[in-house]
Amino acid sequence: MLKFYHNPLSPNSRRVWVALLEKDIPFEVVPLNLDGDQFQPEFLAINPFHHIPVLVDDGFNVVESLAILDYLEVKYPTPPMLPTDAKALATVQMVELVTVNELVPAITPLIRQMMGFGGDSQQLEQSKQKAHTVLAFFEKLLDDRPYFGSSDRITLAEIVAGTTVPMLPPMGVPLNGYPKLSAWCDRLVQRQAWVATEPKPEAIEAFKSRMEALI
Amino acid sequence: MLKFYHNPLSPNSRRVWVALLEKDIPFEVVPLNLDGDQFQPEFLAINPFHHIPVLVDDGFNVVESLAILDYLEVKYPTPPMLPTDAKALATVQMVELVTVNELVPAITPLIRQMMGFGGDSQQLEQSKQKAHTVLAFFEKLLDDRPYFGSSDRITLAEIVAGTTVPMLPPMGVPLNGYPKLSAWCDRLVQRQAWVATEPKPEAIEAFKSRMEALI
Repeated sequence: MLKFYHNPLSPNSRRVWVALLEKDIPFEVVPLNLDGDQFQPEFLAINPFHHIPVLVDDGFNVVESLAILDYLEVKYPTPPMLPTDAKALATVQMVELVTVNELVPAITPLIRQMMGFGGDSQQLEQSKQKAHTVLAFFEKLLDDRPYFGSSDRITLAEIVAGTTVPMLPPMGVPLNGYPKLSAWCDRLVQRQAWVATEPKPEAIEAFKSRMEALI
Repeated sequence: MLKFYHNPLSPNSRRVWVALLEKDIPFEVVPLNLDGDQFQPEFLAINPFHHIPVLVDDGFNVVESLAILDYLEVKYPTPPMLPTDAKALATVQMVELVTVNELVPAITPLIRQMMGFGGDSQQLEQSKQKAHTVLAFFEKLLDDRPYFGSSDRITLAEIVAGTTVPMLPPMGVPLNGYPKLSAWCDRLVQRQAWVATEPKPEAIEAFKSRMEALI
């Protein structure tokens, strides 16, 4: 059975969780609190970079969420989540990488503020502007298809961007200016895998208390 | 003809350059100085995140170096640079992603110091420690094969990690403790594509002068 090292509030980990559910793959969760348990020797032996998610498949450790998603895609190819056409595949991968390398770092100050840890107003404004640059880029890439790089099914672009973009409106980054992306987002959040993995208010509160105790 | 937006000192861009040469793909270089030309409207229209490399194929823009490498792999499959087996592919992708997400951020202060811009000694020491964590991880993943995830040919892991790891010894991160990785590195730097793309001392000096003028 696949072992999934996970925290339900981590967007990086949620990607893998959604993929496991969408592909209907059996797995066992190993929960991490991220209050220091990620630095314990047992976990460092699995991931020396002390990040979640990690997937362990019969002794083979896979770190890095995007590598885990591709591993699942090769081992469990049904339903397929990567196009084979070069341009469609590049579209999916650009969405994955721009989410991880541009969007997530941009909104980190906004997440911190939403968790009640304050923030510098100029920095928060810059975060919002950077998020809008990503949204405009995605709106153009989505084009007139219901999914990135696909006209008939979700891809890894939906798994990765689709678990991050819905976080933006409550942070003060509305999607009104992006009608295609907004409709795309509305469709995704209704899916069973999205509903089942949405961060629970009580989990957010418990996490905040642990972080406050650490600070 | 493929258009390659490039600066010869950028490790992100060098990855794509090496892949283009290894696969013997014809391309046209569009050079960027990164002294502000990356913020010009013409370039922002191609990449709103103002980063190189970018590949433009007949009007189709591909940003993000790892997405460009996979795009080239699908369009120009010979020689193949991605294994098809799930574990071998995950090995290659972990090396790519750990290089980009762990190694490159870790050594940024060391690069800055080597360029003559100084640095905090405690931070530089931490950088070296983090680089060693990555090297130990790679040594284990390489196992007894000559290449990551492959026993007979270079993969995208070599393209990505193999253009970054050779930078470490001159920065004070020796490879002595990693005999397999050290031999791997020695083999790679002798390849024609590595020799042809190695940063030239005069290009490094010219870049330093431009950066000093900007500061």
